[in-house]
Amino acid sequence: MSTIPPFPWTILRSQEEFDNRWLRLTTHDVLNVAGNPHLYSTIHIKRAATGVVAIDAAGRVALVGQHRFPLRIYSWEVPEGGAEPGEAPLEAIQRELKEEAGLTARHWQQILTLHLSNMLTDEVAYGFLAHGLTEGEAEPEESEVLALDRVPFQRALAMVDAGTITDAISVALLLRVDRMARTGDLPADLARAILAD
Amino acid sequence: MSTIPPFPWTILRSQEEFDNRWLRLTTHDVLNVAGNPHLYSTIHIKRAATGVVAIDAAGRVALVGQHRFPLRIYSWEVPEGGAEPGEAPLEAIQRELKEEAGLTARHWQQILTLHLSNMLTDEVAYGFLAHGLTEGEAEPEESEVLALDRVPFQRALAMVDAGTITDAISVALLLRVDRMARTGDLPADLARAILAD
Repeated sequence: MSTIPPFPWTILRSQEEFDNRWLRLTTHDVLNVAGNPHLYSTIHIKRAATGVVAIDAAGRVALVGQHRFPLRIYSWEVPEGGAEPGEAPLEAIQRELKEEAGLTARHWQQILTLHLSNMLTDEVAYGFLAHGLTEGEAEPEESEVLALDRVPFQRALAMVDAGTITDAISVALLLRVDRMARTGDLPADLARAILAD
Repeated sequence: MSTIPPFPWTILRSQEEFDNRWLRLTTHDVLNVAGNPHLYSTIHIKRAATGVVAIDAAGRVALVGQHRFPLRIYSWEVPEGGAEPGEAPLEAIQRELKEEAGLTARHWQQILTLHLSNMLTDEVAYGFLAHGLTEGEAEPEESEVLALDRVPFQRALAMVDAGTITDAISVALLLRVDRMARTGDLPADLARAILAD
């Protein structure tokens, strides 16, 4: 796994197809590694995604329920949001956790970096673990209709196992925290609270 | 978590912006829940993504290394591919595992459904576990330059922990299989092989 071959596409020309506040779609005239021409359209996502597993002293995790427009589904997820251009991912997710769930946290740790759909987009997600929570008032944006819940961590994991939680960031983050609790990578009291049924 | 509120957007008009073999981008004129107008562009992804954690008798997992064009990075991942329209996800990933890694498997189980980027796209990924492997010849497509490796499962997990594997489907699938091995949801010999260092 040591030698990285050269980038296999030769880009002849790039044409912007669409651009808005959130994304830019570009079509590239390329030659593939065999020297044959084809078109490859890629999507630049302008905001990094962020998400957080926020766990209270009782081992419960904050979940947010909302409709997701592109899929027309209702989705239970960990709190998430986009980092504005220039905004640090940690700053963005601290803001989102406060806005969506009314929570602030003493302890923050980045635990995942994800590329969400790497054949078509350059979207990056940064995943965090937060604990030592303080409760305040949620302040959702006008365009958001959010339901809030806090469920025992193993119940959230059971929702992943059952396919009830499907959001990729949430699934990866919940499984990563579960693994950290089982492999001694969390403070002992937090791990105990997380692994309790 | 029982009451699902009504869909919060009223769609006034939808305009197709871009369409190719892989995706369609549409801008919707909508009213949000507060009754205020805005534009929401969504991306329909025409192929379901599929991925597989394929584990041999020694507990090693098949990994594929490749450049990912939109990110301009080299990425080690589990074997993945798109289901053609009308193709069942299981059929698609069995074909991809054969093409990319030269492997067929006796035992298949779907273990995850993921929505990869649900604020912008409707892309769905189906994740599988395969074991009972038989080796053959890889048959990559002309446009693919793939490196193949097979590494002990816990070494692949360590690559997730370290942020070396970042592909969302791979991260979620590897963590899910690790959890299944730890919670008694796999055959005992497979779990033992996976959990061995």
